[in-house]
Amino acid sequence: MSDTAPTPDLSTLTIAVLGGTGPQGRGLARRFAAAGLDVVLGSRDAARAADAAQALAEVGRVRGTSNAEAATAGDIVLVVVPWDGHAELLASLTDELAGKVVVDCVNPLGFDKQGPYALPVAEGSATQQAAAILTGSRVVGAFHNVSAVLLEDPSVERVETDVLVLGDDREATDLVQALADVVPGMRGMYGGRLRNAHQIEAFTANLIAINRRYKAHAGVRVTDV
Amino acid sequence: MSDTAPTPDLSTLTIAVLGGTGPQGRGLARRFAAAGLDVVLGSRDAARAADAAQALAEVGRVRGTSNAEAATAGDIVLVVVPWDGHAELLASLTDELAGKVVVDCVNPLGFDKQGPYALPVAEGSATQQAAAILTGSRVVGAFHNVSAVLLEDPSVERVETDVLVLGDDREATDLVQALADVVPGMRGMYGGRLRNAHQIEAFTANLIAINRRYKAHAGVRVTDV
Repeated sequence: MSDTAPTPDLSTLTIAVLGGTGPQGRGLARRFAAAGLDVVLGSRDAARAADAAQALAEVGRVRGTSNAEAATAGDIVLVVVPWDGHAELLASLTDELAGKVVVDCVNPLGFDKQGPYALPVAEGSATQQAAAILTGSRVVGAFHNVSAVLLEDPSVERVETDVLVLGDDREATDLVQALADVVPGMRGMYGGRLRNAHQIEAFTANLIAINRRYKAHAGVRVTDV
Repeated sequence: MSDTAPTPDLSTLTIAVLGGTGPQGRGLARRFAAAGLDVVLGSRDAARAADAAQALAEVGRVRGTSNAEAATAGDIVLVVVPWDGHAELLASLTDELAGKVVVDCVNPLGFDKQGPYALPVAEGSATQQAAAILTGSRVVGAFHNVSAVLLEDPSVERVETDVLVLGDDREATDLVQALADVVPGMRGMYGGRLRNAHQIEAFTANLIAINRRYKAHAGVRVTDV
């Protein structure tokens, strides 16, 4: 959703998903492809990305390749890699990602016997770490709290959740809100500046705790908006 | 809401609100009193608390007194004071609060030209700071993200929001969930352990940013629960 700006046209853009062979990346790719967008999955292993893309061939236009080629191909590039390796991957792709809207979706979480918890991040958040590394890109944070189980389930027609979009670049956050809006049930919403990304990433730990307690695939709706 | 445990009976309990003369404290007191609960407002200035209670006399059973006397009177004690002074107040009330369920509602936030942001807290969160100080109490975090504007508005009949309750003491979190449930529209929900309280407190910065962007009084609903 947008308060005043016109809705950006996504139909001519390519959406790249780095780390696109994990559940979250595959799930997002499925939903964007189902909405008619052009999707490129990236992986460290291009063959695995090609396999994951093949599995989505019936859904829409999805192809798979290396992370570097996906980054080159994408107009909007989602980063859906494990936290362990996040900085290293982005540092290797600064040229490919220059000038692009990069959407960090990574949740730095740890797990122990008591369940999930937020890991400390020197830059404040994964999104701020991405912004610190990708100084030539337009970094936004989004899609942190969306259940991969629901995204990947073809029987789930509507993914009922708001997607909080964090960033300091209004045009970029508007674009990513529009990207979330293409998924039925999903609503993109501005969620604050980059410096307020940490708590949205960390909130995923609470959602996991909620899922365990209530046997749910919890998402978030913001009321009164 | 509760997944399995029986709903605790709140009708015989006194709810104390420390810092009860601010908008959030007054607003919570209004809602609990409207639900028929016995409420005691506390303040550094007992006369101000008495005035605030008098203003709620038509709503229900509300009286005002000092923070120390309110802490003594309450079976469940909500802490709704400014972050600046939080530690000092709690340290002064360790005896009064011993053995009680203490509900920390405080959001450590800063504001500058770019808007709200989360302040760092040595203990991790205000709730964890309370737990570190009140070693003899049963500390829970809750009511962080509820709009004071809505709470205080008598024309708002239902406060449509979930209240995430953080804590490591199941009986205490169940009790505080039941307390949230007494307010029409409000739903108490377990939200994770104390160590995951920070992001719920900090999320209030995002809600303030959302309120500014969308001219709203935003709250949160968890979906699929």
